[in-house]
Amino acid sequence: MDIAALRRELDGLKVEDNEKIVQQKSRDFYWYSPLLKRELEHVTGDLIVSPKSEAEVIRVLAACHRLGIPVTPRGAGTGNYGQAMPLSGGVVLSLAEMTEVKSIASGRVVCQPGAIIADIDRATRTHSGQELRLHPSTYNTASIGGFIAGGSGGVGSINFGGLRDFGNVLRLRVVTMEAEPRVLELTGENLHKVTHAYGTNGIITEVEMPLTASYDWVDLIVGFDTFMAAARYGNALACQDGILTKLITPIAAPAPFAYFKRHQKFLREGQSICVVMVAPHALDAFLAFTRREGGEIVYSAAIASPEDKKGLPPAYELAWNHTTLRALRVDPAITYLQSLYPFPNQLALVENMEKMFPGEVFSHLEFVRFDGNITCFGLPLVKFTTEERLDEIIRLHEENGCPIFNPHRYTLEEGGMKQTDAIQLAFKREADPRGLLNPGKMIAWENPDYDYRSEKTFLFKGLQAG
Amino acid sequence: MDIAALRRELDGLKVEDNEKIVQQKSRDFYWYSPLLKRELEHVTGDLIVSPKSEAEVIRVLAACHRLGIPVTPRGAGTGNYGQAMPLSGGVVLSLAEMTEVKSIASGRVVCQPGAIIADIDRATRTHSGQELRLHPSTYNTASIGGFIAGGSGGVGSINFGGLRDFGNVLRLRVVTMEAEPRVLELTGENLHKVTHAYGTNGIITEVEMPLTASYDWVDLIVGFDTFMAAARYGNALACQDGILTKLITPIAAPAPFAYFKRHQKFLREGQSICVVMVAPHALDAFLAFTRREGGEIVYSAAIASPEDKKGLPPAYELAWNHTTLRALRVDPAITYLQSLYPFPNQLALVENMEKMFPGEVFSHLEFVRFDGNITCFGLPLVKFTTEERLDEIIRLHEENGCPIFNPHRYTLEEGGMKQTDAIQLAFKREADPRGLLNPGKMIAWENPDYDYRSEKTFLFKGLQAG
Repeated sequence: MDIAALRRELDGLKVEDNEKIVQQKSRDFYWYSPLLKRELEHVTGDLIVSPKSEAEVIRVLAACHRLGIPVTPRGAGTGNYGQAMPLSGGVVLSLAEMTEVKSIASGRVVCQPGAIIADIDRATRTHSGQELRLHPSTYNTASIGGFIAGGSGGVGSINFGGLRDFGNVLRLRVVTMEAEPRVLELTGENLHKVTHAYGTNGIITEVEMPLTASYDWVDLIVGFDTFMAAARYGNALACQDGILTKLITPIAAPAPFAYFKRHQKFLREGQSICVVMVAPHALDAFLAFTRREGGEIVYSAAIASPEDKKGLPPAYELAWNHTTLRALRVDPAITYLQSLYPFPNQLALVENMEKMFPGEVFSHLEFVRFDGNITCFGLPLVKFTTEERLDEIIRLHEENGCPIFNPHRYTLEEGGMKQTDAIQLAFKREADPRGLLNPGKMIAWENPDYDYRSEKTFLFKGLQAG
Repeated sequence: MDIAALRRELDGLKVEDNEKIVQQKSRDFYWYSPLLKRELEHVTGDLIVSPKSEAEVIRVLAACHRLGIPVTPRGAGTGNYGQAMPLSGGVVLSLAEMTEVKSIASGRVVCQPGAIIADIDRATRTHSGQELRLHPSTYNTASIGGFIAGGSGGVGSINFGGLRDFGNVLRLRVVTMEAEPRVLELTGENLHKVTHAYGTNGIITEVEMPLTASYDWVDLIVGFDTFMAAARYGNALACQDGILTKLITPIAAPAPFAYFKRHQKFLREGQSICVVMVAPHALDAFLAFTRREGGEIVYSAAIASPEDKKGLPPAYELAWNHTTLRALRVDPAITYLQSLYPFPNQLALVENMEKMFPGEVFSHLEFVRFDGNITCFGLPLVKFTTEERLDEIIRLHEENGCPIFNPHRYTLEEGGMKQTDAIQLAFKREADPRGLLNPGKMIAWENPDYDYRSEKTFLFKGLQAG
């Protein structure tokens, strides 16, 4: 890899080769997984390049194409599965400097991929009382481009479903990795080519996202004596079509009291909870509903004193992947899974899984809309012992009808649908014919004959030696 | 009934006793039903009183209470089941002069009950880009108070469910009919006391409604060769969590071509359609989805020429009860039903009913959210022959799992859940102890022993002689 030649070609661009910084910027939150921690700890790029414009992105891609140097794009590095880690080294293309919010209109915002999600919302709220439909729990640090390339949903999915659903991304500008990179505008079904593709088949240089009405969401925690009471409450609340919420998150004891240190004063040991974000004008109806359902409001931002609120993280930083983060901070032996409890049997499936691993797996649900129905994903916390036991827990979920999106794998397929995404693969053939973009992440490209039923972890041959 | 004494007591209030005008203002769209037309044609009040303030409402109620004169409240008279018709005569209390929009905030509007729904939306759009969540097809003529007292849902129910769901009405001020009328503020579960109670247990003098983001909704018509193709498409579109729509209305041939005269130039004879309202920023995704599903866009307001658009009614005036109105204008023998196709079997139930009455019943569906799921109501058009046959068509729906909300009855119970609403009844005991408010509409009050399984039409003894 002729990094020296590349440096000459990139004269005038922002480039970083300090080893420590390069290593730091080559990582994401892969260490949530003890398996990925072991496998990827040594992975590092050779150079961080931070373009400030689409023209500079094109220069980088053309040069790397010429020199055969891999390019792994990266937003803010808040992903979880090594999705932005350069498995074969080369250039880490940081989009973090491309942060412009270009235009805001009714229902729409256009911005550069490196814009931080909370910053976009600040701009759209000020402009016209609007906000993005969906955001990850890393709202304050994640970039919009990284969310589109690596995320699948999050806070707001209770109203709008997932990022890959029609209508949740409006338009993407994408630069291809060819001798002369092309700039493509994708809309409608063409968006599926690059959403949640980890940047393996094009570099996003501009995004247009739908907006919805913004509110000063009210954080609440509802307490229950048992986890299933919290889960049933969450499901029933999610089915209330007139009560506008943005987050409905049941979490089983002992996690809330044990891991939510700053909220501990509001909680009892052994208490399961449901974390909720409610629109201010829905609060009356929410409280009436919660009273009827027998939920106990243990924390309400609407009536908490300034002193009570001091230092409290927002509700969404107790939810989605932040639940895991808080658990890990207290107990480094914790890891997690990502599961789906398919409609209409979600509550029965949740109850089965809740009973199966006492003291070892702590349930954590996120209610969402999914193909028009209410159901829930899970991000259960797991006390990690061995890889074999982790695999067994995964197997027991899947055998019992709860698909696992394995967060202990770095490939798109193993973490996702466990099959070739023909659309993404075809687009990679077109947009990255030399296979230089984020190598090792798309099995369908690396090994078209890989057998997904083998239960064998895919090993990328190009992975840097440890 | 001492109307002369009442006139003296109401000195200074706006009162109308011209017989023709009183009769006109004593009617609603009851004539959609040939049965109600026969039963209620002779019904008329003695006096129309139009208070301009809550204080004047209180004066009217106190005076009528003293004199034992019935009071039947009325918004704009756009209801369908004689719900605002004074069965025992007396005062028709028109709220049409109380039209003030009092305040608008994020997610909330406060107004008087006589405000026309379209006028409220104009005010909230101008103020802050917001609009009401739900409205009837009589958007341009219906009052908000009438909608709350007599409606159940409509355009927007695909996103927010029904009017009686928690959160779809925020607060109501209600005046009781007692010697000294009280003013009550109802929120949360207490709202169920008076929503959809036809004004039988209190007079609404102020409403607070939730708002949502307003958009310049795009009207579209999608054409299909068969009705079931249109129904399946509507169901699938409704399940697209990321495509923001406000109306999804499949209508079977021959109705569209035969009855939608102003849209006829866009339609083929024998064509079934799905009428849709889509948010502008959802249009790309909507078109991609519709292409994938094999729907043919026969009309799109986004690309129609000014000449094409000239004189066209808005999409919502092809839907809900306006479908019936348009059919009636062309064929006076048409009447209709109101049905529910319960989730998750809605499409199979729709198909059963579609086959059962060829040439006699024309399917018309409205997709909605209902307890968190997507399903559909029906407002099928019926070629009326006899009362017996109409009853048989109703019976065949119910025997096949499709509940009918009978629009050929003037009581709350027969048109709705066919059981006593204990909450509404208890509140009537408290708020209208002499039973003077809209007499004859609540069976539970008039005859607590009425047997809902008798299949006998309830006959109100106090109904004016014909």
